Amino acid sequence: MFESAELGHCVSDREYSVAEPKLREELLRAQYELLKERSFPVIIVIGGVDGAGKGETVNILNKWMDPRHIITHAFGEMSDEEQERPRMWRYWRALPPKGRIGILFGAWHTDPIVDRVLGKIDDAQLELALGEIVRFERMLADEGALLIKFWFHLSKKAQKARLKSLEADRETRWRVTKTDWQRFKLYDTFRTISEKALRETSTGYAPWKVIEGTNPNYRYLTAGDVLLDALQHRLGGSAAPVSRPAALPKPPLDGRTLLSGVDYTQKLAHKVYSRELEEHQGQLNLLTRQKKFREKSLIIVFEGVDAAGKGSTIRRVSEALDARHYQIIPVAAPSEEERAQPYLWRFWRHLPRRGRVTIFDRSWYGRVLVERVEKFCSDEDWMRAYHEINDFEEQLMEGGAVIAKFWLTISKQEQLKRFRERRNTPFKSFKITAEDWRNRKKWNDYERAVCDMIERTSTESAPWFVIPGNDKFFARIEVLKTLCQRVQAVL
Amino acid sequence: MFESAELGHCVSDREYSVAEPKLREELLRAQYELLKERSFPVIIVIGGVDGAGKGETVNILNKWMDPRHIITHAFGEMSDEEQERPRMWRYWRALPPKGRIGILFGAWHTDPIVDRVLGKIDDAQLELALGEIVRFERMLADEGALLIKFWFHLSKKAQKARLKSLEADRETRWRVTKTDWQRFKLYDTFRTISEKALRETSTGYAPWKVIEGTNPNYRYLTAGDVLLDALQHRLGGSAAPVSRPAALPKPPLDGRTLLSGVDYTQKLAHKVYSRELEEHQGQLNLLTRQKKFREKSLIIVFEGVDAAGKGSTIRRVSEALDARHYQIIPVAAPSEEERAQPYLWRFWRHLPRRGRVTIFDRSWYGRVLVERVEKFCSDEDWMRAYHEINDFEEQLMEGGAVIAKFWLTISKQEQLKRFRERRNTPFKSFKITAEDWRNRKKWNDYERAVCDMIERTSTESAPWFVIPGNDKFFARIEVLKTLCQRVQAVL
Repeated sequence: MFESAELGHCVSDREYSVAEPKLREELLRAQYELLKERSFPVIIVIGGVDGAGKGETVNILNKWMDPRHIITHAFGEMSDEEQERPRMWRYWRALPPKGRIGILFGAWHTDPIVDRVLGKIDDAQLELALGEIVRFERMLADEGALLIKFWFHLSKKAQKARLKSLEADRETRWRVTKTDWQRFKLYDTFRTISEKALRETSTGYAPWKVIEGTNPNYRYLTAGDVLLDALQHRLGGSAAPVSRPAALPKPPLDGRTLLSGVDYTQKLAHKVYSRELEEHQGQLNLLTRQKKFREKSLIIVFEGVDAAGKGSTIRRVSEALDARHYQIIPVAAPSEEERAQPYLWRFWRHLPRRGRVTIFDRSWYGRVLVERVEKFCSDEDWMRAYHEINDFEEQLMEGGAVIAKFWLTISKQEQLKRFRERRNTPFKSFKITAEDWRNRKKWNDYERAVCDMIERTSTESAPWFVIPGNDKFFARIEVLKTLCQRVQAVL
Repeated sequence: MFESAELGHCVSDREYSVAEPKLREELLRAQYELLKERSFPVIIVIGGVDGAGKGETVNILNKWMDPRHIITHAFGEMSDEEQERPRMWRYWRALPPKGRIGILFGAWHTDPIVDRVLGKIDDAQLELALGEIVRFERMLADEGALLIKFWFHLSKKAQKARLKSLEADRETRWRVTKTDWQRFKLYDTFRTISEKALRETSTGYAPWKVIEGTNPNYRYLTAGDVLLDALQHRLGGSAAPVSRPAALPKPPLDGRTLLSGVDYTQKLAHKVYSRELEEHQGQLNLLTRQKKFREKSLIIVFEGVDAAGKGSTIRRVSEALDARHYQIIPVAAPSEEERAQPYLWRFWRHLPRRGRVTIFDRSWYGRVLVERVEKFCSDEDWMRAYHEINDFEEQLMEGGAVIAKFWLTISKQEQLKRFRERRNTPFKSFKITAEDWRNRKKWNDYERAVCDMIERTSTESAPWFVIPGNDKFFARIEVLKTLCQRVQAVL
């Protein structure tokens, strides 16, 4: 993988001075077209050997194009706000919106490689991290992002020479630190591990371009050229790579679904309810106040049929918590800023820090429910979402979160009753709209979507809890009980 | 101020059970109306004596209303990301958008009071901090926010009793810490200083409501009642308090303005330019790499006549910097999320951390330029902006920022020449739009706005630099030179 970047590639000053102005003009032109179209973001990932000219190349790219529409991020030490979230949170924060170019320095590949080199993680863990990266980049590509990954390489000899020459010059001496020399000693290990990492994360939609770093002219022109090619290719109308689903899910032949077996007759008497409500609210309150909980976070997802009682159930949960420690995120149509990002972005921005609770009133599952049924996205989009969502939740849990997902359901008849009640009660009439009636007509489509969703995203570590809500008392207690069990299990 | 909150206010359980359901229903109704209108945000500030029931009251408010549309924030220790920004940054981050209720626990009043009690700041510093708060709240009110400030009070005797009773109960013992008792010893000082703080920050548009904390029934009902009153008053059509300007600025009688004296004939030969460009870019690079700079940040504002060369000048500046350390923020029309906040919000969100540079390509001065001339905001709005902007920049500087503001200007004739050039050069034609020609027709209006802006916002610590740009070489070198001087001065 690195052999072709150790050939001593070189571009003379004369060749450079001929090629540079043309490349520059075309890059700028492509950048403005990108900006005008605003149809996809460009993500440039920068990695490689120390001293191979990463920083200088990024500076040149900024110089060649209009730096006002480039967002450069360098990832150093994590801030404490980042440490309290899943590993990928800091990268989600830094993603460029559609129409802009983001240059990410030492992005998601760096930590796994360095950690493996320093022996902080083992081979299996490296493997897991690389797998996660592949899926993440796949998702970005599917969301339309143009991914370009540059790896700047130096042979061992060349790196040594480079560090020495930087040190010899008074102007650049500051750039070589003790750490650089310590790392140099690990060159061979670093090389082996990064080769593995590059190989496993080099995909058709997001290939690595390894660039020899010795000669600046060669380095700059190559990077610019690859970028220009990719931009022009995509701007020229070539579509983003899209994962094609094998086939759409079909309902079972015998018509028996996860929902057809739900027992809507379960009930709680008011007296029992009152007692249990107090008991379970108290228990949840105590659990979230335990010292150990400060190292965890709790993410609660409420989805459900219209009028199934999501709002009132959420209130019974939030009442058990201290207002200082929870946030409720009502999810409606995405804002303009959210639409310029991958669909999961707007959920990443609301992730709780440790010791906190976030309650999502509707969630990322909208992708495979309303967006699927109403055709707000393509079949490809919602089909791949199951896997992306599982991945997302996996990351949340790795980051210390407990997840509880509730599907609140009522019978079709009960819904009709509640809709009528709402319509006829002045105080509640704002809660019922023409849309609700329209959705009701699509009852079967929604039910199918729900069954597919549960089948594909109910995992052992983040299972769905289907809660029959014809009796509100019963539903609320079920939810509270389940929450207590989920939290208890990790403390 | 506190006397009336030491009378032993009390509401019986019977009275409470009568009043509560009605209050609750009306609060909920008002909240939904607020949500539907989305015309203003509600900011509830919570302060007061420890143990006076602040947390419980906030929980009750969340219980009474729909917690999905309430955002509660408790401000504890600053995160490192917050520490690297001006003091008020964390509060700007937490402001609720229009239509929602934000409950801010221990917000901007807390630090100055506690710092004064502990002797970390002196009387003069407290005075300054309180003045800043008054201006901040004035701005929020002028931006349409409904501000409600609750102070929960306990007499010394009552506080002691409260702490003891909490301690006596196994269930609540955890809530009383050593710090609470240490603070109790400072009760008298705390009382004196908070009284002063409340007095000075209690204004007509944002009054403090002091609530006696001893009796929960009284406490809850009073808080709910005050909130409901304020909501209904405002929803009932009563306008937000607006600062009325004394009179609009008038042009000077003799027609001599800051711009009429600009010498557009200044020039630099290309050879001199090349040499000086290298020299000053190098110098700026070195300056921003100094160790001392890591404790500072640099905020550069570019405003100017259309076609004055902002873009190309910005590039000469960014070329001198490492792409890892600067961000350029191009300012155009605000996004949907930004429109739901005070106009300065979208600039606060881009403030650099320490050691970093942020370049604004157009800025908050849009308020007193394009928004004034095109009447995108009322006279009241842009008239108060001068003062608000001065305040904003003052806070930036207090937070360690160096500010450099450039007005790039060209003669009317030169603008015409450049417009025509742009129109006739295919590669540049995207840079010229019908809007540019329209703006040109309003040349005099803009010039007047610029003169007023400079007159009112050029301060000793953040002066405007008017840069004649008929000769681009001259302009760029002037900007670079000035930047070097500004940075040098603080290192």
